[in-house]
Amino acid sequence: MNTTYRDILKWGDKRETQIDQGTINVIKEKFGYSESDLKQKHLEGNQEVKLDVKSDLDQEILKQFIEIVGSDNIQTDDYSRVVHSYGKYYADLLKLRMGVVPTPPDAVIYPRSEDEIINIVDICNKNNIAITPFGGQSSVTRGVETPKGGISLDLTKHINKVIEVNEINSTVTVQSGMFGPAFEDYLNNFGTGYSCGHFPQSFEYSTVGGWVAAKGAGQASTGYGKIEHMVLSLKVVTPNGIINTKTYPASAQGWDLHQTFLGSEGTLGVITEVTMKIHKYQPNNTQHASFIFKNFESAIEAMRTVMQSGVGVPHLFRISDPEESEIAFKTKNFNGTLADKFLNTIGYKSGDRCLMFVAVEGSRSYTNQVISSIKKIAKKNKAFSLGAKPTKKWLKQRYSSAYLRDPLMDLAVMTDTLETAVMWDNLIPLWTEVRKYLKSREKTVAMVHISHVYENGANLYFTFLSPMKKGDELNEYTEFHKGIIETIQANNGSLSHHHGVGRTLAPWMENELGKESLNLMQAVKDHLDPNGIMNPGNTLGLKP
Amino acid sequence: MNTTYRDILKWGDKRETQIDQGTINVIKEKFGYSESDLKQKHLEGNQEVKLDVKSDLDQEILKQFIEIVGSDNIQTDDYSRVVHSYGKYYADLLKLRMGVVPTPPDAVIYPRSEDEIINIVDICNKNNIAITPFGGQSSVTRGVETPKGGISLDLTKHINKVIEVNEINSTVTVQSGMFGPAFEDYLNNFGTGYSCGHFPQSFEYSTVGGWVAAKGAGQASTGYGKIEHMVLSLKVVTPNGIINTKTYPASAQGWDLHQTFLGSEGTLGVITEVTMKIHKYQPNNTQHASFIFKNFESAIEAMRTVMQSGVGVPHLFRISDPEESEIAFKTKNFNGTLADKFLNTIGYKSGDRCLMFVAVEGSRSYTNQVISSIKKIAKKNKAFSLGAKPTKKWLKQRYSSAYLRDPLMDLAVMTDTLETAVMWDNLIPLWTEVRKYLKSREKTVAMVHISHVYENGANLYFTFLSPMKKGDELNEYTEFHKGIIETIQANNGSLSHHHGVGRTLAPWMENELGKESLNLMQAVKDHLDPNGIMNPGNTLGLKP
Repeated sequence: MNTTYRDILKWGDKRETQIDQGTINVIKEKFGYSESDLKQKHLEGNQEVKLDVKSDLDQEILKQFIEIVGSDNIQTDDYSRVVHSYGKYYADLLKLRMGVVPTPPDAVIYPRSEDEIINIVDICNKNNIAITPFGGQSSVTRGVETPKGGISLDLTKHINKVIEVNEINSTVTVQSGMFGPAFEDYLNNFGTGYSCGHFPQSFEYSTVGGWVAAKGAGQASTGYGKIEHMVLSLKVVTPNGIINTKTYPASAQGWDLHQTFLGSEGTLGVITEVTMKIHKYQPNNTQHASFIFKNFESAIEAMRTVMQSGVGVPHLFRISDPEESEIAFKTKNFNGTLADKFLNTIGYKSGDRCLMFVAVEGSRSYTNQVISSIKKIAKKNKAFSLGAKPTKKWLKQRYSSAYLRDPLMDLAVMTDTLETAVMWDNLIPLWTEVRKYLKSREKTVAMVHISHVYENGANLYFTFLSPMKKGDELNEYTEFHKGIIETIQANNGSLSHHHGVGRTLAPWMENELGKESLNLMQAVKDHLDPNGIMNPGNTLGLKP
Repeated sequence: MNTTYRDILKWGDKRETQIDQGTINVIKEKFGYSESDLKQKHLEGNQEVKLDVKSDLDQEILKQFIEIVGSDNIQTDDYSRVVHSYGKYYADLLKLRMGVVPTPPDAVIYPRSEDEIINIVDICNKNNIAITPFGGQSSVTRGVETPKGGISLDLTKHINKVIEVNEINSTVTVQSGMFGPAFEDYLNNFGTGYSCGHFPQSFEYSTVGGWVAAKGAGQASTGYGKIEHMVLSLKVVTPNGIINTKTYPASAQGWDLHQTFLGSEGTLGVITEVTMKIHKYQPNNTQHASFIFKNFESAIEAMRTVMQSGVGVPHLFRISDPEESEIAFKTKNFNGTLADKFLNTIGYKSGDRCLMFVAVEGSRSYTNQVISSIKKIAKKNKAFSLGAKPTKKWLKQRYSSAYLRDPLMDLAVMTDTLETAVMWDNLIPLWTEVRKYLKSREKTVAMVHISHVYENGANLYFTFLSPMKKGDELNEYTEFHKGIIETIQANNGSLSHHHGVGRTLAPWMENELGKESLNLMQAVKDHLDPNGIMNPGNTLGLKP
């Protein structure tokens, strides 16, 4: 029986992840933590969940909801409401650990069908009740908070089926509340075998609808694209009617309306169904390679050359910057080994050298050709090949690093990730400035990688670890976080490449887009949701 | 000195295209035309241009325009106004031949800068004067007509420069009024050599802004995508302010606003600048192949297999259906040759067999790998290889077939093209039904090809030729055309894959998109253009 805040803050199946000894060593070294520091647990969140804020729903309306979904599919207890109050943003976790939940939803509803969603949206629209669509709970942008209370509309319990796989068209139509692993598993086992090609870090705890709403990217995005490159059509229940776009491979009948909902983050309506591309599942053809480069610049140069030479594209394509590479070596206890000494001797020096991981999917002849082209380009840029193994190893534990955050926070470590998209010519300057900012905080470990790559640029993904200032955890984090975003924006990075905006990045949206563009978004919002009931409270920088 | 309607209706440089003997033979055979029929010219349009409709512009406002652009850059003479009254739709050409121009613009303005455009839009917005942006004049959807008179804003004279090529990012920023050939030529000769990768049939007489506004596709779209897959950002002067989106390789900061203008067809504002991807120009690596298949089905099966097998993609990828293939053979005088007899003997029978053209661009290793994969797949589908030559030949005359329309119309031949996008499972049924409809008209030649191919489906491109009913040319065409669109729509094809909607397809938009989606488009329109001055008169099915 789950009853505590800690039960809520942990990832999905409540795993209590252990930190590996390598990471412990890094923490000890970088933060000067003693053995006794490592035994203390900070803000564990073991207190029982109890809300001060009562569910405020009108009893008559509650009755209407119960009539629609049945009493099994509506919850107003404190625990369920807290579960649906936050995503997985660092500040969310801090608040849960502290038991701070000022604006929970009044009720959690689990609709069983699209018709039920239509009815619920209708009732809420007529009665000015806020609706926040809720999926896998992995938002790191305060995208599922309920600042105006109302309904958290949880789609994961019932709206979670594959509707149709079309093998001729190579498409799937799927309901929005389906989780990543169930979806991929279904596709792998359907007919001759397919894959969705979308594997975000949050894969195990995210839904198709969440991917679409927040414009996510998976680890194979360099080959398959971000989710917005995969979606062909969708169905959205808005307060102003149902938008149901048609499925074509491409078209020229005005601008593509389905694009409006990719990145809409729940502000325009409830996405109920998505039709997207699928791909032949042929893992036996996949080719892997790993390299070490002498420095970040040469690794980036090789990556850019691959993307701009017309050699075809890999699916997984990553570079870790020097600090992330060093930490990877350290946590794998590679440092100081003979192999490490050898690499240092031949010019791949600790603190400069960078790891690159590559995986290419497709037909055997394609993967052979692309991997061999990449190897040639890497060699020209003085890379040392590490073979296929490191990439394969990385793939095996690809989702796990996010789960480390909980035990790290137990040790009073502030740790978060931020990310941005930049054009190639802007990558090193932005990386330099954001690192400088991160390092301006004492004892901060700053790891950066590139993990989503395009002809014209790439993302930069920042992970930082730093000791918490106990007693002022939330404020000091908020201040630090703000500085990172401002540094990104000042250096021509996008506010986000794939995390989305939510409420966390909302304050920077006008500066980012310009007043005219934000006004255009607001006009779309006002048309589809005239009463402002859909995920209200400044999401995307829209009017509260 | 150009003075007649005929001077206007002919393509760009006023070429008088000659019909080749092969095509003449087809016309004689199919339509039963005699030698004397071939000597007559129908509706030549040789009369002098003269408008009944006077320029209606307020003299005070005209003065303001002259102050802005200078008197050299504004025209109110009849000839200039007629040039800017129509695109290249079949009915446009009929009307020009008949000298029917009921709603010419009041003036043609050639702005010299973005600032001038801003001023012009401002004046027009304040005075409720319609503005129709004008590029290469190749619209086949009545996209540049001026049913409310006003200003035709011709961007080709001054707003036609490359602003920046960024070789690191592999991007170009270009003004919207630049023509295709000048643009491609500039890129080919810049630095190490680039290509825009966009070669629509109208290439020689279309502009970057037109490509973007009407969501065009080029002949290499299977590799490089349609224009909406190439554009990274753009600048649009709307009556409600300037939308200037930022250039990122991808992002997740709300929905992509620049997508709203791809396919906006002048209804939201004047597109002034576009930043788009470019590609290494490496024509020496290009690999060509041509095949003949036993029937349309097996050719399609091979094409679909290529697109869904992860072998990489070709850039040019075309299949001609049996009738188009036969006409191609006939006009090349291939029919009846020994080679023809041989092909018939071994199972590639006239009336069933289909031609496929392939070209793959990129690095040498990529093009080798892809072409060899395609050859294997073609062979499995019982194709007979014709080598590289037919594709190379086709590429050399790739733009010319459109210019045949004028001499064909001189011979009283009704000829037009329509196109649609379909999912794979829908391709043969739609093709069958539209062909049936086309053939319901006596003596109609119906040629169909697939020329833009995706993992999930393709386009179908219909070309028809049929003798005109003299004296009722416009009405009978309109009726026939209507039936084609209705047949496409009844068989789940998109209204357009790359021609756009304009006013021609506008009446079908509500049925296509649904009321809610069209309302959403209207809301965007009303926000950006509250007075409805931008390309008014039902374009895209928006309110007149």
